[in-house]
Amino acid sequence: MSNVTIKTLAKELKLSTGTVSKALKDSHEISSETKLRVHELAKKLNYVVNPYASSLRKRKSKTIAVVLPEVADSFFSLAINGIESVAQTKGYHVLIYLTHENFLKEKEILNDFKSGRVDGVLISVTSETKDSTHICELLSSDVPVVFFDRVFDDIETAKVTTNDFESGYIATKHLIEKKCKRIIYLSISEDLSIINKRMDGFKKALMDHRLKMSENDIVYCSNDEYKNFDIIKKRMSVNPKPDGIIISVEKLTIPVYAVCKELGLKIPAKVKIVSFSNLASAFILDPALTTITQPAYKMGEAAAALLFKALEKPNFQIRKQQVVLPSVLTIRKSSL
Amino acid sequence: MSNVTIKTLAKELKLSTGTVSKALKDSHEISSETKLRVHELAKKLNYVVNPYASSLRKRKSKTIAVVLPEVADSFFSLAINGIESVAQTKGYHVLIYLTHENFLKEKEILNDFKSGRVDGVLISVTSETKDSTHICELLSSDVPVVFFDRVFDDIETAKVTTNDFESGYIATKHLIEKKCKRIIYLSISEDLSIINKRMDGFKKALMDHRLKMSENDIVYCSNDEYKNFDIIKKRMSVNPKPDGIIISVEKLTIPVYAVCKELGLKIPAKVKIVSFSNLASAFILDPALTTITQPAYKMGEAAAALLFKALEKPNFQIRKQQVVLPSVLTIRKSSL
Repeated sequence: MSNVTIKTLAKELKLSTGTVSKALKDSHEISSETKLRVHELAKKLNYVVNPYASSLRKRKSKTIAVVLPEVADSFFSLAINGIESVAQTKGYHVLIYLTHENFLKEKEILNDFKSGRVDGVLISVTSETKDSTHICELLSSDVPVVFFDRVFDDIETAKVTTNDFESGYIATKHLIEKKCKRIIYLSISEDLSIINKRMDGFKKALMDHRLKMSENDIVYCSNDEYKNFDIIKKRMSVNPKPDGIIISVEKLTIPVYAVCKELGLKIPAKVKIVSFSNLASAFILDPALTTITQPAYKMGEAAAALLFKALEKPNFQIRKQQVVLPSVLTIRKSSL
Repeated sequence: MSNVTIKTLAKELKLSTGTVSKALKDSHEISSETKLRVHELAKKLNYVVNPYASSLRKRKSKTIAVVLPEVADSFFSLAINGIESVAQTKGYHVLIYLTHENFLKEKEILNDFKSGRVDGVLISVTSETKDSTHICELLSSDVPVVFFDRVFDDIETAKVTTNDFESGYIATKHLIEKKCKRIIYLSISEDLSIINKRMDGFKKALMDHRLKMSENDIVYCSNDEYKNFDIIKKRMSVNPKPDGIIISVEKLTIPVYAVCKELGLKIPAKVKIVSFSNLASAFILDPALTTITQPAYKMGEAAAALLFKALEKPNFQIRKQQVVLPSVLTIRKSSL
């Protein structure tokens, strides 16, 4: 057996190993001329494909990965069900990876996918993700990626979202119509584009209705539930005291209710609440919670459908795909 | 290269291919005499290990799988966090597979693990799982398996559970002390041993306090939330009407509250409720929910710790390991 490797060919031809590898696989990214040069030298030097490496590379894992911040959030557990309903019909396994809102973990997980462990990836990024290199690298190693819900705006690949700006606007307008004068917005990240779009909708509604906003009306919470209780309690205790709250992510609902209980602030008499939430228990909370309900299951379905199109049709323009599904305001006692 | 395979050796020696394979790997399950016969023939016939197969088999995937019925249940999302906290310190990835309470899906997933995709498995079985062949097969392909919460009693491998019988007893005794005379028990499976242990605790408490029980006081719900509403509504509408309910799994809490709302049955005045639940929102429900809270995070941690011991120490007696961690009764308004 010859000791000629891709490296030998690359060195000899003054090409990168990536180019040689692609040329040997007849990639459309490589010019016919380069392919010819690579194949001729390979033949001349008696180059033999490493059967082990090749077998691994071509292997269809029949598996897709879903990369999520957490599963305690009802949005994600419903979205998973939507994804699995599609994967099931395709005979694929679904692997769920949790980042726990940790950017380094997300990077590590995506790096692992380059080896061909999965055929495609559905991802909702962490609240810390500012840099997108890890996602770009995955895309350039020919693993299709579809964003759902928490997208990264700058990357050109399929995205499935809801109408975040409009929903933020509708939620705020609803509280204004219920006579709220000082509404605050609870965020969990300065970087997540969907949370910022909801915030932009909130700001626009205030402006359209000529309501003032001060800097401390945008309250940044953390990923630590105990800290969040203190952050929210602090804001609810200083003037100007809010009479309305827009909660931008489900997990802040519990600390908000807990703070109101502790401070003796009756909901909705003293403070009215709308939360972006898919909590199944919303209607049995004390009081029942007004929600912006995202079409979580459908978003999961749509994202998976796009990914399978990319897997099944090599010419599918995955980069151009954008799906926006509308959320719904469900009015309950907490805002009445 | 010789064309002698494991099959050739097996045929010649009148042994199974499994035995020959194990003998070549020096397994303790094979007698020294058989090993000698296999090795002698292998040498004589110039048998060469298939490098591709061997490489796959020895490959450490640095990955463990968690196989669960669902993630919408707070117990499971907390247990995952416990599991991941341990895996993180070991530098392992955690893959989550959902069975959606479907036995065939569970079988399919476990079959897939035999190829070496993961190094070890943590599992909580579906409510349909009666047959354990798929789990035994996985164990016999040398993939360590640890059960947590929903165990399969007959299989000899590590198990991490809570004190289900005792918790069922304590929950029921609490309702009896609050003057309930007709308590019903909501189950989701005739097969799940943990649900039946909770039920046995329920029955024993009734017996010890000389309370009668009729057949329809054990109510079997399904995996379909809409059906569950109807099943519970039906039982709450016929005589003898219950004045107490033990809910054996979290997901039945919402339909129980919904039925009570619809029938105008005030909780706790007309009917008192205790639920096995890790719902973070238990204290803000209307009324706040009395729970048997399982040590979900700790159970996940303990299960993962056992699995890593098995992966790190070949002589670790995984079959003998049993960990039982106690649950806690947290009394809130729904049972007062």
